[in-house]
Amino acid sequence: MDGTYRALWLTEHGDLEVIDQTKLPFEYETKMLTNADESVRAIKDMTVRGAGVIGNVAAFGVYLAAREVQGNIEALRPLAQAIRDSRPTAVNLMWAVDRMMTLVETSGLTGDALVDALRRESILIADEDVLRTEKIGAFGADIIERIMEEKGLERFNFLTHCNAGWLAIVDSGTALAPVYEAQKRGIDIHVWVDETRPRNQGANLTAWELSQAGVNHTVIADNVGGHLMQHGMVDMVVTGADRVARSGDAANKIGTYLKALAAHDNGVPFYIALPASTFDFEVLDGVAEIPIEIRDEDEVKIIRGIDAEGRATTLQIIQSASPALNYGFDVTPARLITGLITERGVCDPTVEAVEAMFEDLI
Amino acid sequence: MDGTYRALWLTEHGDLEVIDQTKLPFEYETKMLTNADESVRAIKDMTVRGAGVIGNVAAFGVYLAAREVQGNIEALRPLAQAIRDSRPTAVNLMWAVDRMMTLVETSGLTGDALVDALRRESILIADEDVLRTEKIGAFGADIIERIMEEKGLERFNFLTHCNAGWLAIVDSGTALAPVYEAQKRGIDIHVWVDETRPRNQGANLTAWELSQAGVNHTVIADNVGGHLMQHGMVDMVVTGADRVARSGDAANKIGTYLKALAAHDNGVPFYIALPASTFDFEVLDGVAEIPIEIRDEDEVKIIRGIDAEGRATTLQIIQSASPALNYGFDVTPARLITGLITERGVCDPTVEAVEAMFEDLI
Repeated sequence: MDGTYRALWLTEHGDLEVIDQTKLPFEYETKMLTNADESVRAIKDMTVRGAGVIGNVAAFGVYLAAREVQGNIEALRPLAQAIRDSRPTAVNLMWAVDRMMTLVETSGLTGDALVDALRRESILIADEDVLRTEKIGAFGADIIERIMEEKGLERFNFLTHCNAGWLAIVDSGTALAPVYEAQKRGIDIHVWVDETRPRNQGANLTAWELSQAGVNHTVIADNVGGHLMQHGMVDMVVTGADRVARSGDAANKIGTYLKALAAHDNGVPFYIALPASTFDFEVLDGVAEIPIEIRDEDEVKIIRGIDAEGRATTLQIIQSASPALNYGFDVTPARLITGLITERGVCDPTVEAVEAMFEDLI
Repeated sequence: MDGTYRALWLTEHGDLEVIDQTKLPFEYETKMLTNADESVRAIKDMTVRGAGVIGNVAAFGVYLAAREVQGNIEALRPLAQAIRDSRPTAVNLMWAVDRMMTLVETSGLTGDALVDALRRESILIADEDVLRTEKIGAFGADIIERIMEEKGLERFNFLTHCNAGWLAIVDSGTALAPVYEAQKRGIDIHVWVDETRPRNQGANLTAWELSQAGVNHTVIADNVGGHLMQHGMVDMVVTGADRVARSGDAANKIGTYLKALAAHDNGVPFYIALPASTFDFEVLDGVAEIPIEIRDEDEVKIIRGIDAEGRATTLQIIQSASPALNYGFDVTPARLITGLITERGVCDPTVEAVEAMFEDLI
């Protein structure tokens, strides 16, 4: 990876262009976001998704909102709030909006000067993410090298759930950053890609990213990982996160908890990769306190793919007579997590270790 | 349920008619099986599936094979062997063929008399299954009543994976038999139906069965069960099995192990429901010894549903550039299982208890 992979970018007119992630891998399309409402809708309908990219779009969204109201702070506040409320679980979203609004409330700027400062601040947030993912990649690849040495492996089997690659966090992602870094270091790495129902971000996004980057991988149904771990076919599990408690409890895509249980039952190292902005230091008991989004049942019932003629289309796969319930995330208790791979290093999933490493942010 | 639900039946011409389970719920079609080869193909391509029904089709298949070769034992043996080899994991298949061939080898019959005896024996096997499922249903419903009393519940939340209803075992199934019996007893029961990727037997078959029977249910992605159990939304998990070791280790549809881990982690009772014919008393270590079928990757990549015009069709949902790996089953270690619900009662998942309850069969 050479840093050219981005899920979003500013155009010369100062609009935000994003890859429409609901269309991948069968179609590559972009969407132009020009104001607050379009930013909110892109986050809600998952045109953009992934904790980091949601945070980036939220930050750019505040800038677009400010541009929309000519830098009028009174008018900007409710628009920023709407962006902040667009999804409930991922904390980077709130973090990014709060950072942008702190600038609004404290800079003393208004009008065009404010709009310009917000544009620069949102670019800065995205650029900082790039540096963070590089560090996460390096710390993660160090763990891979250590496990390979300890186990005498020539090939490394990595398992991930959902997508925490460059489509989720600019540049190289969180969970996939160690994979890309391992590839750069010449390690023979193979990735088990959980399909990640119901939205299939693994099959649609992670598999696409990995095939674009020439990384060996195999798509599996979400049901398969336990069997693989029972039979020594997984050397490490790494996922991203949408919100991590001060205790290390980690909210991530629904089903992550099941993989953590299987890893724990079979002595497979299970890591969460995250930038510090994904911590919610206010939360101690993640299972009890982190709000879990319930999304539309049609995300379970309707699936996207290509028909026999290669045309992208959708299909109803569950009979209308049956309701479906669609929780977007679950919380993996810290006791099942081996470590948190952050831009500052690998942190034990305990209140003490998190407080020690991130004292200045709390 | 009044015993009229059958996944297969003999026609007046002595052929075997089966519901094509690959077409449900969007189309109801039957297929006629008239010889050994058609029986093998129906099992292999999952026109029929589910441990019990596979056993029934295998038994009827031996009868059809005998009819095909006019009761010639020499000619019958390789055909019976082909039926026995049609799938590797479900032990009822082997059990049923062996029972039929014991009759062949010991009855002294040949020709039409043998064909007729085999026809009667295969009907007997299916009829015995009906009695077994009634008993399994009663023992399971007793557990439901006990849990409701202990927890003071007015409504019971049941979770199942895959399909072990009347489409899998004639009459009322194994895992679903307690549900149908609970409904009969007037219990307010709601079933969480795991979608069961990649073949979606939960969404396609269990949800269809339950809606036909008027049982409250909700389809969920396979990733969701852990979250539900963390939040007290599941009172009991019951699945069927394809092969159960003498130790209680249970092979069932891929993903069952993950649900058992979640149940164990949250103190939710986890039961396997099975007729005695699903035991493989030769096996002690299920994880190491039970062969796990690997099926075609297209079962992961191609999905069935209905298009916008309501026409049943298929869609490719994973890009061609990515390989997929398709394990059909996994093994849940006995230590995660609360009990085995059998036609003889509820058995602890231990060598000692299994040997004590099924001594005469070992």
